[in-house]
Amino acid sequence: MIVVMNPGVGEKEVTIITDKLKSMGYGVHLSTGENRTVIGVIGQRREEVAQAMEAMPDVEKVVFITRPYKLAGREFHPDNTVINVGDITIGGTELVVMAGPCAIENEDQLLQAAEAVKKAGAKVLRAGAFKPRTSPYSFQGLEQEGLQFLNDVRSKTGLLIVTEVMDQFTVDEVAECADIIQVGARNMQNYYLLRELGKIRKPILLKRGFSATIEEWLMAAEYILSGGNYEVILCERGIRTFEPYTRNTLDLSAVPLVKQLSHLPVIVDPSHGTGLSGLVPAMSKAALAAGADGLMVEVHPNPQEALSDGPQSLTPDQFNTLIHELKGVALSVGRLI
Amino acid sequence: MIVVMNPGVGEKEVTIITDKLKSMGYGVHLSTGENRTVIGVIGQRREEVAQAMEAMPDVEKVVFITRPYKLAGREFHPDNTVINVGDITIGGTELVVMAGPCAIENEDQLLQAAEAVKKAGAKVLRAGAFKPRTSPYSFQGLEQEGLQFLNDVRSKTGLLIVTEVMDQFTVDEVAECADIIQVGARNMQNYYLLRELGKIRKPILLKRGFSATIEEWLMAAEYILSGGNYEVILCERGIRTFEPYTRNTLDLSAVPLVKQLSHLPVIVDPSHGTGLSGLVPAMSKAALAAGADGLMVEVHPNPQEALSDGPQSLTPDQFNTLIHELKGVALSVGRLI
Amino acid sequence: MIVVMNPGVGEKEVTIITDKLKSMGYGVHLSTGENRTVIGVIGQRREEVAQAMEAMPDVEKVVFITRPYKLAGREFHPDNTVINVGDITIGGTELVVMAGPCAIENEDQLLQAAEAVKKAGAKVLRAGAFKPRTSPYSFQGLEQEGLQFLNDVRSKTGLLIVTEVMDQFTVDEVAECADIIQVGARNMQNYYLLRELGKIRKPILLKRGFSATIEEWLMAAEYILSGGNYEVILCERGIRTFEPYTRNTLDLSAVPLVKQLSHLPVIVDPSHGTGLSGLVPAMSKAALAAGADGLMVEVHPNPQEALSDGPQSLTPDQFNTLIHELKGVALSVGRLI
Amino acid sequence: MIVVMNPGVGEKEVTIITDKLKSMGYGVHLSTGENRTVIGVIGQRREEVAQAMEAMPDVEKVVFITRPYKLAGREFHPDNTVINVGDITIGGTELVVMAGPCAIENEDQLLQAAEAVKKAGAKVLRAGAFKPRTSPYSFQGLEQEGLQFLNDVRSKTGLLIVTEVMDQFTVDEVAECADIIQVGARNMQNYYLLRELGKIRKPILLKRGFSATIEEWLMAAEYILSGGNYEVILCERGIRTFEPYTRNTLDLSAVPLVKQLSHLPVIVDPSHGTGLSGLVPAMSKAALAAGADGLMVEVHPNPQEALSDGPQSLTPDQFNTLIHELKGVALSVGRLI
Repeated sequence: MIVVMNPGVGEKEVTIITDKLKSMGYGVHLSTGENRTVIGVIGQRREEVAQAMEAMPDVEKVVFITRPYKLAGREFHPDNTVINVGDITIGGTELVVMAGPCAIENEDQLLQAAEAVKKAGAKVLRAGAFKPRTSPYSFQGLEQEGLQFLNDVRSKTGLLIVTEVMDQFTVDEVAECADIIQVGARNMQNYYLLRELGKIRKPILLKRGFSATIEEWLMAAEYILSGGNYEVILCERGIRTFEPYTRNTLDLSAVPLVKQLSHLPVIVDPSHGTGLSGLVPAMSKAALAAGADGLMVEVHPNPQEALSDGPQSLTPDQFNTLIHELKGVALSVGRLI
Repeated sequence: MIVVMNPGVGEKEVTIITDKLKSMGYGVHLSTGENRTVIGVIGQRREEVAQAMEAMPDVEKVVFITRPYKLAGREFHPDNTVINVGDITIGGTELVVMAGPCAIENEDQLLQAAEAVKKAGAKVLRAGAFKPRTSPYSFQGLEQEGLQFLNDVRSKTGLLIVTEVMDQFTVDEVAECADIIQVGARNMQNYYLLRELGKIRKPILLKRGFSATIEEWLMAAEYILSGGNYEVILCERGIRTFEPYTRNTLDLSAVPLVKQLSHLPVIVDPSHGTGLSGLVPAMSKAALAAGADGLMVEVHPNPQEALSDGPQSLTPDQFNTLIHELKGVALSVGRLI
Repeated sequence: MIVVMNPGVGEKEVTIITDKLKSMGYGVHLSTGENRTVIGVIGQRREEVAQAMEAMPDVEKVVFITRPYKLAGREFHPDNTVINVGDITIGGTELVVMAGPCAIENEDQLLQAAEAVKKAGAKVLRAGAFKPRTSPYSFQGLEQEGLQFLNDVRSKTGLLIVTEVMDQFTVDEVAECADIIQVGARNMQNYYLLRELGKIRKPILLKRGFSATIEEWLMAAEYILSGGNYEVILCERGIRTFEPYTRNTLDLSAVPLVKQLSHLPVIVDPSHGTGLSGLVPAMSKAALAAGADGLMVEVHPNPQEALSDGPQSLTPDQFNTLIHELKGVALSVGRLI
Repeated sequence: MIVVMNPGVGEKEVTIITDKLKSMGYGVHLSTGENRTVIGVIGQRREEVAQAMEAMPDVEKVVFITRPYKLAGREFHPDNTVINVGDITIGGTELVVMAGPCAIENEDQLLQAAEAVKKAGAKVLRAGAFKPRTSPYSFQGLEQEGLQFLNDVRSKTGLLIVTEVMDQFTVDEVAECADIIQVGARNMQNYYLLRELGKIRKPILLKRGFSATIEEWLMAAEYILSGGNYEVILCERGIRTFEPYTRNTLDLSAVPLVKQLSHLPVIVDPSHGTGLSGLVPAMSKAALAAGADGLMVEVHPNPQEALSDGPQSLTPDQFNTLIHELKGVALSVGRLI
């Protein structure tokens, strides 16, 4: 951490700051330039201390030198994290495809979708039981009944299940029918939930908040990791920008960047990322070429009857074609699908 | 709702759409231009129907004519909502000032802050017991102990209390010590929480999510209103933009716009909105001049010792001066403070 | 400037960097922490050197300590710049109101608008002769003929004129009929134009680019100032965000912030800033309360016949009422209108 | 175009609007719902008319049905535009790679870069003679001397040249040494320049403005096309968002979306798009997988000596490796490099 003093500030004012830092247990290192003094602070990074410094008189700003995430960072964990779940691995050479409908609508729809994605080669079924929506007048998900349907479909098809948990009080319930527990974009900074997920021993799929910086996203992962659960899969799903033609702007550069900064696997959701089924195939290929460890794709047996997110869902036929096309792209970057 | 067909689409394809709409109980109204057909859809607005239409072949896009919020909208409720709480009113001629520290740190700090803001003329004390933070290694709030301190300070000072609730399971606990219950920016789309708050009978202060559109914000209010709790106070607190000099960009144009669209009172939080205490006085004045019904301001007895948000907190002296200066601005727009 | 080395980098690698910096004439100051070395660089700030450092091996990042603007900054010019033009001053106690139509459409429209804004108390007429538009099929302005009309109206009404220049080759032509030369938001980073404007001796109104940071805006002013023209008026006119209800998001916090960072006067354009005439009165008041030195407001004799920006233009009557209401707000912050 | 009336507006008010539209030569088509009347307007889309309508009393909003671009749109030009320049084609099966340094610094540097990119397989050399920079104190390009160097290097190496033009007055000069003329992001809405480029007969590379929507970008292309120059290559180079880790956010979803909306070729610049050379290989692969027709990549013989954009430039060796790796990705989507 570096504390930058206002220009023209004298020795006396600087001493007030350095004394305070020393009283907090930090080492200090003065660097006096032509116009201003800069204080190097040696010790563990803590946001509170930075804020205290910024609130002091004569301090212009505080600059961090180190990244705030430790367990999520590659610095102290150079090797890729590879997660085993059921008979698949996530983060290794083989890519994972998670597919299925946005919302569970009824048992038939779920089973049809499951069979279709399984036939096309997906190993993980995605489907939501809890569907909080912008409008209180819209369909909100089947909730507990939906979880039951997921359990049934898991038995019938042998697919692994990824489904979303909404709060810290339903973690156990969701964990019973899910092989991977999803934290949705709106919950990325629900720290009570993250803390609870740090206590269990199931892989967590952590979606990037639609306005979260990469640093905030990795800090959300840090919450889970610091609780003792080291199996976190990051999922880029688009960020909010000024562009109105797409639902979100899929930030694919986050993929190679997060792979540099962190050891955690990263997958991409091009369905929410674009909101337009016509863009999903191209962006799925791009995601793999960018180095993603997998995809999460919305597939619905009949998108125009979907109760949620129809415009961004592929039909089973479209999904089948996509999987076929992805094999070549995966190979071209040394991966398998 | 208007369904716009792709250019060159024929009568047969249009009939598929209109038949489907009719089977869902909607009236339809065809308008055939030179290049394309447009279908006016008569009936209640529902997002699911719009999504189904967009997922159908030959449909280019769906355009909404009406706003999605009803109870929050001024159309069906032309008069301003005025909320009575304790001996104050919110949304009337008199302006409300809520002030206090970001986080409750200990009983002394809270009492000092309370007495200082009371002395300056504030009627409502703001202070948080639950403080989830970006970093798992930062101070997270005193939680239940903090609520107890709030209760004590309320008794001692007679100030009204506004404090944040984090989830649907602690609503009752928070309601016991709060006169106004705050929903934080990160929870603006926590619909389970909003639904629970619709069931109680206490005013809710609903902060705008830092990346929420005005429409999404009003829809969040709609969740609470549709549950039967009509006392919602909106609070603008800055949105996330590309500008790095300020913590957020305070969107003051939201104030007159929301006053046009909705009957609910709107207040402004210039402390979070800017992140810099040096900007708080100017933006407080601007907020009142823009027509806000009040302010929420961070005041800390000793900002450089604050465990949270010191750089954006005013000292009691600065707050006192501010209140004095605000009186003239309030008068100039026909309000009182 | 501070150069942060990658963690674990040894003495040898650090020496490569420090040798290079010394060879460029910089002083260096090493600070060796537990995990990494940080190099303080003493000497004039230059972006090229920073980029060279960032491109070197073993360098994690470069952090600037000083602001990049010098002439525009308050550090070396603590007093406010006050600009005299005709019989008015900009940046002093008295506030300036510039008003008029977006585009000059014909002589009558211009004269009507001019007389209306003069009657209401404006001292400066704004109107554009060059109107490049998003669509090549839209009205593009009267160009040279429009400048002639401006000249005539100036003679007839005695109003001062502010009008936009589009490129470095028409500066002289525009300077002949303008008392203040406007640089539009799209041209804020047209450095050839800025350089040319640095050579003349007329006040320049520099609009903030709709996606420009405050630092980029002040650097654009620096271009003009560094050419020797010290009379620059900054104009906040809204930035591009994700919010669709308003044309732009008016960033009023830029006003007090720029007043802290710079000595230059700052005015606000609430018409472009919101795009909605219904928000202009409230945002005009807010701008003055935030400390702006004036306003630029679109007024059209008949907004629904306007060839450009009708929806954001006030009628003469609305403008008259607004000016009346602004007087009180101005007084409340110690200013006059 | 659809004009939506305010709720509760009566027949008389609607007639005022429809009479006005008819007087402007438009057909109208009334649709009267439960709460409000909607007017379908039949005739050519024009922004002025829409603005006039929005400025009228009792009108809530105007909604466009058709896209504003015609010549750039796929609707009236279903086949891909393929551009021939020298011995290459752009927009066909074969992909184009343009590479070279950001700025021309001297003849040696340019020749070294040219030979390196040629050896690696690039057919087009990119390099800028005009380099307007955020700071007036930074290197601004060699200007005319740089153009001369480009001419020499073209003769010596046989590479095609793409270089940027800054204003409408230097188009001829740049056209003499350029095979493809580049419009930079900051000039995307410099309509005087675009208009001039519509008059010449050389391919134009039109970069997306860093805050331009896709619609605005296509409208900028429309300016050139409507002047009679049909050879426009679009170039995605990143948009400005809230994410600070990357210089811009590369919007790869723009690639498949623009390919749907328009017939023009689209290439991607991952160097400016990310600002970090370490992300360029992954994003280059992703761009091709997303369907881009080519790439523009910064390559510098010695990035740490570069006068501009060193941190985002590849070394010749890195570029050579990249080209090799891209061949497989291109093949996997049915393209050649």
